[in-house]
Amino acid sequence: MLVIKIGGSAGINLDYICADIAALVQQGKQLVVMHGAGKEADALGEKLGHPARHVTSPQGFTSRYTDRTTLEIFAMAARGKINTFLVERLQKLGVNAMGLSGVDGRLLQGTRKDAIRIVENGRQRILRDDYTGRVEQVNADLLRALLERGYVPVIAPLAISYQGDAINIDGDRAAAMIAGALGAEQLVILTNVPGLLRNFPDESSLIARIDKHRVEQTIDFAEGRMKKKVLGATEALALGVRQVIFADGRIEQPIQRALEGKGTVIE
Amino acid sequence: MLVIKIGGSAGINLDYICADIAALVQQGKQLVVMHGAGKEADALGEKLGHPARHVTSPQGFTSRYTDRTTLEIFAMAARGKINTFLVERLQKLGVNAMGLSGVDGRLLQGTRKDAIRIVENGRQRILRDDYTGRVEQVNADLLRALLERGYVPVIAPLAISYQGDAINIDGDRAAAMIAGALGAEQLVILTNVPGLLRNFPDESSLIARIDKHRVEQTIDFAEGRMKKKVLGATEALALGVRQVIFADGRIEQPIQRALEGKGTVIE
Repeated sequence: MLVIKIGGSAGINLDYICADIAALVQQGKQLVVMHGAGKEADALGEKLGHPARHVTSPQGFTSRYTDRTTLEIFAMAARGKINTFLVERLQKLGVNAMGLSGVDGRLLQGTRKDAIRIVENGRQRILRDDYTGRVEQVNADLLRALLERGYVPVIAPLAISYQGDAINIDGDRAAAMIAGALGAEQLVILTNVPGLLRNFPDESSLIARIDKHRVEQTIDFAEGRMKKKVLGATEALALGVRQVIFADGRIEQPIQRALEGKGTVIE
Repeated sequence: MLVIKIGGSAGINLDYICADIAALVQQGKQLVVMHGAGKEADALGEKLGHPARHVTSPQGFTSRYTDRTTLEIFAMAARGKINTFLVERLQKLGVNAMGLSGVDGRLLQGTRKDAIRIVENGRQRILRDDYTGRVEQVNADLLRALLERGYVPVIAPLAISYQGDAINIDGDRAAAMIAGALGAEQLVILTNVPGLLRNFPDESSLIARIDKHRVEQTIDFAEGRMKKKVLGATEALALGVRQVIFADGRIEQPIQRALEGKGTVIE
């Protein structure tokens, strides 16, 4: 079992990624795909006159402030556009893809954080009416039922709170939770860089291998949005996933090459 | 087994409908929900500077001309917004709703009509690059697998062509195909009028009952968008559905009242 996270950033090559997924499925590999939506949601928010507001926590993690309108925009981008057309693309390649978000059948459940602490101009403040959260429970039965029937679940980064609110979640950490819940061997996180870089954006500073006991130290020098990916990696490993690989989503056969060790391998 | 189609027009009361679905589910009723998206897709198209273009066929049926951009807008509205938040609403009421579109797992398959004949200013012409079609095959196995596990499928009006293109479909006729494929007893079509009206929009001209052998004659006097609903009804009956009920989606307990015979009952 393999969980693949496809980042939402510019440069990612969906043609290569989907062709590789089709090749792996043909080899009989069971897999689950999780995708991001950041760039698309930002563009849609701009067009609709409700631009995204990215905020930073006191710990240095960045996130999207998600009021109800932003949640709707995020759902339209993530679930409506990216998920639907990723499923379409895979279906064209003969992969029986099945789109879901974490809201569906309570696939991904967690606590909604309706108030978040942020740092703005060096000062801390609280933002309210936020629809974000973190995945705490995965409905693995639903995923297994789909996998057993030959479907490839393709999951959009939304979850549902215990009270039933749709919430915006971090796709990398959700992919980690899914990999853990399914007992996946590997989690491949595809981005628009070759892996984890010691000196971002210098691609020659790629870190090829990290021991699982030293991952947390890596968070300190990981650049902005990489911090959460590293956090996701530590969570996946803690849940029993054997290997987490940060790999380049711009190259041909990106997943098979990641599985051969290209990228940053954490184990 | 009951299939419910929720129209996308103004006036429909989702609070009443969802409360009624929750009540029926609690009574142990198995059901499948299909929804529309017309109004929402039109509004989004306006905001994004790509307004919908509604066209009329030589037979007098209206539809949405769907170029690739319109398809994306439609998917964002139907799948991203309406479906996600309908599922959220039902989940809050304790219904384990599961959103799908016909693209997912090839739930709804049909032939894409990439060229359509329309009438414009009294003249016929052909429009190309259309992403519309009609549902010909339903993946009933997938729906049954979900129903058996206690999920309530909530379906957005998109399908997939045999070549793997996502296509925009008519929700009423899709609901009819689903009801037929599942061997449903009843199909309830909720709109913002009390049922089929002899003299639209005069609500006192409600037709309470139509014999299944006389439905096709009804198409002649059915108003614009009602024509397809009547067509859907004839298709559902031909597939063995016992009763099709056009009912008022603006009132309390709209489904239970429809099942008691309120609306236009076709059998």
